Amino acid sequence: MPIKTGKDYIESLHNRKVKVYLFGEEISNPVEHPIIRPSVNAAAMTYDIAHDPNYHDLATARSHITGEKINRFNHIHQSTEDLIKKVKLLRVLGQKTGTCFQRCVGWDAINTLSSITYEIDQKFGKQYYERFMNFLRYVQENDLFCCGAMTDPKGDRSLSPGLQPDPDLYLRIVEKREDGIVVRGAKVHITGAVNSHEIIVMPTRAMTEKDKSYAVSFAVPSDTEGIIYVYGRQSCDTRKLEEGKMDLGNVKYSGQEAMIIFDDVFVPWERVFMAEEYEFTAALVERFAAYHRQSYGGCKAGVGDVLIGAAALIAEYNGVEKSSHIRDKLVEMNHLNETIYACGVACSAEGYKMPSGTYQVNILLANVCKLNVTRFPYEIARLAEDIAGGLIATAPSEKDLRHPKIGKYLQKYLKGVEKVPTEHRLRIFRLIENLCMGLGSVGYRTESMHGAGSPQAQRIMIERIVDMTHKKKLAKVLAGIEEAT
Amino acid sequence: MPIKTGKDYIESLHNRKVKVYLFGEEISNPVEHPIIRPSVNAAAMTYDIAHDPNYHDLATARSHITGEKINRFNHIHQSTEDLIKKVKLLRVLGQKTGTCFQRCVGWDAINTLSSITYEIDQKFGKQYYERFMNFLRYVQENDLFCCGAMTDPKGDRSLSPGLQPDPDLYLRIVEKREDGIVVRGAKVHITGAVNSHEIIVMPTRAMTEKDKSYAVSFAVPSDTEGIIYVYGRQSCDTRKLEEGKMDLGNVKYSGQEAMIIFDDVFVPWERVFMAEEYEFTAALVERFAAYHRQSYGGCKAGVGDVLIGAAALIAEYNGVEKSSHIRDKLVEMNHLNETIYACGVACSAEGYKMPSGTYQVNILLANVCKLNVTRFPYEIARLAEDIAGGLIATAPSEKDLRHPKIGKYLQKYLKGVEKVPTEHRLRIFRLIENLCMGLGSVGYRTESMHGAGSPQAQRIMIERIVDMTHKKKLAKVLAGIEEAT
Amino acid sequence: MPIKTGKDYIESLHNRKVKVYLFGEEISNPVEHPIIRPSVNAAAMTYDIAHDPNYHDLATARSHITGEKINRFNHIHQSTEDLIKKVKLLRVLGQKTGTCFQRCVGWDAINTLSSITYEIDQKFGKQYYERFMNFLRYVQENDLFCCGAMTDPKGDRSLSPGLQPDPDLYLRIVEKREDGIVVRGAKVHITGAVNSHEIIVMPTRAMTEKDKSYAVSFAVPSDTEGIIYVYGRQSCDTRKLEEGKMDLGNVKYSGQEAMIIFDDVFVPWERVFMAEEYEFTAALVERFAAYHRQSYGGCKAGVGDVLIGAAALIAEYNGVEKSSHIRDKLVEMNHLNETIYACGVACSAEGYKMPSGTYQVNILLANVCKLNVTRFPYEIARLAEDIAGGLIATAPSEKDLRHPKIGKYLQKYLKGVEKVPTEHRLRIFRLIENLCMGLGSVGYRTESMHGAGSPQAQRIMIERIVDMTHKKKLAKVLAGIEEAT
Amino acid sequence: MPIKTGKDYIESLHNRKVKVYLFGEEISNPVEHPIIRPSVNAAAMTYDIAHDPNYHDLATARSHITGEKINRFNHIHQSTEDLIKKVKLLRVLGQKTGTCFQRCVGWDAINTLSSITYEIDQKFGKQYYERFMNFLRYVQENDLFCCGAMTDPKGDRSLSPGLQPDPDLYLRIVEKREDGIVVRGAKVHITGAVNSHEIIVMPTRAMTEKDKSYAVSFAVPSDTEGIIYVYGRQSCDTRKLEEGKMDLGNVKYSGQEAMIIFDDVFVPWERVFMAEEYEFTAALVERFAAYHRQSYGGCKAGVGDVLIGAAALIAEYNGVEKSSHIRDKLVEMNHLNETIYACGVACSAEGYKMPSGTYQVNILLANVCKLNVTRFPYEIARLAEDIAGGLIATAPSEKDLRHPKIGKYLQKYLKGVEKVPTEHRLRIFRLIENLCMGLGSVGYRTESMHGAGSPQAQRIMIERIVDMTHKKKLAKVLAGIEEAT
Repeated sequence: MPIKTGKDYIESLHNRKVKVYLFGEEISNPVEHPIIRPSVNAAAMTYDIAHDPNYHDLATARSHITGEKINRFNHIHQSTEDLIKKVKLLRVLGQKTGTCFQRCVGWDAINTLSSITYEIDQKFGKQYYERFMNFLRYVQENDLFCCGAMTDPKGDRSLSPGLQPDPDLYLRIVEKREDGIVVRGAKVHITGAVNSHEIIVMPTRAMTEKDKSYAVSFAVPSDTEGIIYVYGRQSCDTRKLEEGKMDLGNVKYSGQEAMIIFDDVFVPWERVFMAEEYEFTAALVERFAAYHRQSYGGCKAGVGDVLIGAAALIAEYNGVEKSSHIRDKLVEMNHLNETIYACGVACSAEGYKMPSGTYQVNILLANVCKLNVTRFPYEIARLAEDIAGGLIATAPSEKDLRHPKIGKYLQKYLKGVEKVPTEHRLRIFRLIENLCMGLGSVGYRTESMHGAGSPQAQRIMIERIVDMTHKKKLAKVLAGIEEAT
Repeated sequence: MPIKTGKDYIESLHNRKVKVYLFGEEISNPVEHPIIRPSVNAAAMTYDIAHDPNYHDLATARSHITGEKINRFNHIHQSTEDLIKKVKLLRVLGQKTGTCFQRCVGWDAINTLSSITYEIDQKFGKQYYERFMNFLRYVQENDLFCCGAMTDPKGDRSLSPGLQPDPDLYLRIVEKREDGIVVRGAKVHITGAVNSHEIIVMPTRAMTEKDKSYAVSFAVPSDTEGIIYVYGRQSCDTRKLEEGKMDLGNVKYSGQEAMIIFDDVFVPWERVFMAEEYEFTAALVERFAAYHRQSYGGCKAGVGDVLIGAAALIAEYNGVEKSSHIRDKLVEMNHLNETIYACGVACSAEGYKMPSGTYQVNILLANVCKLNVTRFPYEIARLAEDIAGGLIATAPSEKDLRHPKIGKYLQKYLKGVEKVPTEHRLRIFRLIENLCMGLGSVGYRTESMHGAGSPQAQRIMIERIVDMTHKKKLAKVLAGIEEAT
Repeated sequence: MPIKTGKDYIESLHNRKVKVYLFGEEISNPVEHPIIRPSVNAAAMTYDIAHDPNYHDLATARSHITGEKINRFNHIHQSTEDLIKKVKLLRVLGQKTGTCFQRCVGWDAINTLSSITYEIDQKFGKQYYERFMNFLRYVQENDLFCCGAMTDPKGDRSLSPGLQPDPDLYLRIVEKREDGIVVRGAKVHITGAVNSHEIIVMPTRAMTEKDKSYAVSFAVPSDTEGIIYVYGRQSCDTRKLEEGKMDLGNVKYSGQEAMIIFDDVFVPWERVFMAEEYEFTAALVERFAAYHRQSYGGCKAGVGDVLIGAAALIAEYNGVEKSSHIRDKLVEMNHLNETIYACGVACSAEGYKMPSGTYQVNILLANVCKLNVTRFPYEIARLAEDIAGGLIATAPSEKDLRHPKIGKYLQKYLKGVEKVPTEHRLRIFRLIENLCMGLGSVGYRTESMHGAGSPQAQRIMIERIVDMTHKKKLAKVLAGIEEAT
Repeated sequence: MPIKTGKDYIESLHNRKVKVYLFGEEISNPVEHPIIRPSVNAAAMTYDIAHDPNYHDLATARSHITGEKINRFNHIHQSTEDLIKKVKLLRVLGQKTGTCFQRCVGWDAINTLSSITYEIDQKFGKQYYERFMNFLRYVQENDLFCCGAMTDPKGDRSLSPGLQPDPDLYLRIVEKREDGIVVRGAKVHITGAVNSHEIIVMPTRAMTEKDKSYAVSFAVPSDTEGIIYVYGRQSCDTRKLEEGKMDLGNVKYSGQEAMIIFDDVFVPWERVFMAEEYEFTAALVERFAAYHRQSYGGCKAGVGDVLIGAAALIAEYNGVEKSSHIRDKLVEMNHLNETIYACGVACSAEGYKMPSGTYQVNILLANVCKLNVTRFPYEIARLAEDIAGGLIATAPSEKDLRHPKIGKYLQKYLKGVEKVPTEHRLRIFRLIENLCMGLGSVGYRTESMHGAGSPQAQRIMIERIVDMTHKKKLAKVLAGIEEAT
């Protein structure tokens, strides 16, 4: 079957009966809701790009199951070349949407599960891998959007899952039946949840034996009975409800994070990929995190490109593009942005094949990549704000610009260089506001910080992986300490 | 007459006939408008604090004109002690409002004009100083809120005022009459403009002879004929229009910046403090900027205290307050915040008396202070976002929390440590969102960057002031280069 | 008696019978030893400056004991003005020597002991204060150089003093006799030790009851029986032994740190200022550290001035002084350097009077000052190396420059702009090398890092002092959390 | 013929009649001179590693000319895999020597010339490529060490080569003869010059037609008539002359930079690779710089490993290895070090084939790599100094440790944790001193800053390469500016 276009994708979402709450109301048609639609638009771009001849090689792949051309977002990486293409594809999509297009989490989830289910079966003689591959074939053939759901609410972070006063603060199996399992709990900050066909659930941390009921992974259709979505607020979200789109900055696209409540949801066994095999939770989390930390080396560099472009434009519109300090700040922004990208490429180039045949990224470098992502977008945003000037936070509304009486004053007094219309200048101020403080800052700042794990999670991994024994030995040899040989 | 309370102040604002536009509508009663009111509340705190016995010494001063106790915001600094008290007062107000309370610009304007008018008269034998002192006495006796209006739209920044295609892009004298002057132009990013009794206009940059009609300073009542205000949009501004206040984060206070259009406004001579004396524009800008750069060492440290407190609270609510990395980040936030404050204190302690008797801050250190303010609040905000976690950008709305059906799920799943109500935790997430990305970020980020001049302005001043000849000589002496003696 | 000149001071050192080891040899006349002499020269500047009319007000003070004019380095601070003058004096001396002039530690020690001995006596009815004041009068009247000795070797840092396998790794009282005490142990990294008249010993950390024999403070003449000095190596130290002074960079001055071994040294009671009063060790360390952390806001800014001057000179000699990136780096260096100084001034301006009458600096801001000192000199040095270019690390020796055959090639090929002699250019390269990697880097880098306590010590103090309860309350009030009032 | 060992290499150096000056003396046998020998040892490691079975794949390659196994340092890159192996090889050598092993410049030079000579011939019909390939075959077959010499003295940097008061401040052709050319000038900071068999000269910057006599590239044996070497001083260089090796820190290896004077040197045509083809100088410099900026992603990461290991060891020896702040600093050091490495890998993975068949690195990412190298080693060194403590700059000499009388005190008082001998602890302090301030700091700091071009050179390249037009267009599309399509 042919790969779907963005339009097909959007239509397919209408067929679901998802239960979505937003601003205290249940939304009957989320796809058309003005708060939600821009995030659907961003997700749809992951379909459209597969039909763009400029990006065909990046955006599609040949399935290792069926041999058919598929959308790359449902592909299992078969080489380091595949891993590098992933980073490049994400960068292009970041450039084209200027926000989070929400499809990486599911992609990273299927790649993780492809190796983990294989290894569980190798060790414990289960059938998870077969089930998973059936699920994957179905996803590839129908070109579905999978949402990856990992983060639990966690409650009191000083307590392990089983010791929480409320045992549901980590999602868990509350019943094991012959035909499947029943799960209860919630997943928070779930990217693109409301825009997906399938929800893939994974444990959020390494579990021990006493927490084994929390060691659970499965996939269910997004409109499964018992699932409730509560839409997350974002900075400036209600500008999407206003007349006129200019004040949005990014006039068409935005991201989405929602909370998913699993109110005793039944999952049939053929959709269960882990149930109590706590021994594999650490590896699952580590691998998923590494893939997702790699992702940010692509998508955030792409959004960074947009912000750099906007900063360069506003400098031009203000008539200062030739000032040495402006040029120097743009160089710095590019330098930081390319460093992120370089780390994404490096952990891909240093990837390796696992027993299942799936390629995994270099875990150390993927963590290094993400740790840079928790810093550099903040500095890039700071520099963009510096270049732009105060109007990003003081410009009057679009309605004032269009006002019959005072519009002329705004046209007159908010003009920059002569050849550029005032409205263009204001639009770029709004785009910078969007990325630095508004809707887009959720994707560009908060996600960069906490998506794929908070900075401390990366630091812990770096500490765990680097071979300090080797480094200490190197030092001993050079210092002439005899014992070292 | 007694010093006004916040309540008196708010009432006094009703008597003005200001012409204010907001979201494309003319606002009949700005003081009660829900978008504007929080900024009035913040400004009112500058009045109330003068009655708080804990801060009496900081918040009031004895007028050097009348010998009466006055609100310190209308005081001319008479000592370095006064300068230090200014910084301390601003810090307390930043702590109490968590936003920009808008009254420093006018304060810095009167201090600047007190010395500049004196010196113009000394040189050119004018009567500006006497006029200014009459105005000041009136302001002190009536305890008025003066708005300082400096920044012009500037148009094409590569061109000087007189060479702009539109000569009005810097405010200028278009007519000199026997009874006064007529001015045309606009001032942008004007803090607290709509909340003021008097507007004090100053030139935005050093002018040369050929731009002398732009060398103009004066004061007019805020509801003078010909003045139009257009209210600036801020990130998340319309949350103030929503039912419920929780999603605001800072439930009572916010800042304000507006554009002021001067559509051929008449100013009588007794209110004119500079008219064409371009020779004094450089000094005026330098002194005003220094006072205002000092201010930020106080107010931004105060807002920083709030954000540090919020970060510490959320760590506690999440159960991670004892983690070494959390504690270390809080130390870093405090360190940066105190560095800003230290620079504010230092430029005050190193202040000096000018011919008029007014005390000026040390200009080099005031610029150093502000340059740190263009950096550290961004890093403090980044660390706060790191400590807080993703819910600052993904938590559902207050309406969802209050919803009869799904409210219980939010109560359950968004809970942190047991002893803290979910709502408290959400309120703190919203406060952090407010300061990092929402309403408060305008004051804490954009103002820190561009208020009192963008970073490059500080760098230019630092370059101009430091005595490099002396430093080069020091190096020569130590290196044994003979010529140096 | 008149204040001594540098020459008098140097002569006075000859009269001591100190036991000094250096490069495996006992040095008969340390004052004249070419490795040591430059540090004596730097110390002598603290005497000479008291006679320089430009600095008379900074470098002298009126004794609060005798009412006589004394060298400020032996003065007990009587006001915040005194505290600020201290910072200014140290900055000038840093500028004039380009290195550590070694006299602050003793100064900070006497100020600390002036309040601590007073308070011990108040609490325990001892006579320490009287003894100390007698000692101080003697020091002031004879204008002596006091060395402050605080840091113990510490051995295994995970163990407290009494639990070390070797109990002597912290200096301690090994015998209490009727006429005095006998102490054993060592003090390391002791600045200017070999150049001093008196050694003032203080405990290095807070002690508990079981470590009370380590709670000891006293003063002894530097040539007391049982004291052995071992001179510390510094980067490039032996260049001082070479013919020609050019390769030193700083041709006349350097710093000094030595290890002092106390091999069962007797101290008469009149010279004992603390003996087992462990309850006061925490306060002693905290106060001393605060004074010394303030000091760095002066001296390191002074050395920074030299390095900034050298960087500006080399830019000029290379013909790049007008490049925008060079100018921008010089601005950054100045900005960082002035931030350090501002913190030094601020903790002084915020100082306060203690029961003994001595003025103490603001402890929070003094720690903030020092924490900045552990960072900014490193960045200033990095920028200086950037501006200078590779010759700081690849230029041939002075001997090659003077060589009859090849000297001409060096003259020809190492020339920069025409008007500047090649030798001048090379001298400035050497001065930059000195401060960044050579002799001077000990004072400018390592001391900035570890002098007055390593960065973690400042972080611990900051964490302890800031009022987080207050900050959390501020946040609660603004977020509308009811309990907070 | 077999690949040479380090021993063979060292012997081969004896056969040369190089004219070397050091400390004002001509050195008859540079290979055995104690100042020079450690740099020979480091260079020899590039030969020995080719025989180490652990690194055989990294350290050797198959010649694309002869098909023979050769030392990789003389290989022309034939794939991105080759480029990545280069980075890995350099990292291992940095780890094994802890310093600059000097062989990359020549390697980068032959790769650059392989494509440039090819392209000159394509355009101008010359025989440079054939000549160069003959030279390369000779180098590969004899396993020679080529020194790359690029940097000219430059004189007054504000003037182009031909406008310098002294025309020789850039190396130039002073005579063209039938059999070859005569060149005059000098090259400075030349890494490993004295340790090489062949000197490959390249122009240092883009030349224009009027500077065409400066557009010259050639190779000559290192002992060619008219060549004089003057050895560069390094921090702490004379410690190599002292008895005992402990105070060196790195007891066996160091780097080397020398000045090479070309006093009218004749070069036969078969060794000339560019003569006046100024049109290719920009490309030559850009390509060489990119290769060499890639190199630093390997070698500096390797030296970083040593410093990280040393910092971890000293923490252990001090008994603080479990402190959270120490662990956190080690994580940070690793993070920065791996970021450098990741950039080295990324610019290699993104390499591409040129017309000559040679693979070039991605030039943008190579510049990004190097720009990070101008920052992170400085921060890694700062953190190492922080972890180590003051003894890196105050520990007494090895002679004092060995002294019959006082050695016992040093053994006693400079001990850290019980199980570690005092001498081991001191050796690690010295290694850290070496890398941060001593001999090794030349390679780890100054070279990181200025080798392969100073930071501003990378910034200029980044500005030139990034496609800002594309980025501005991305922003326009998202902001809804119509013209953009």
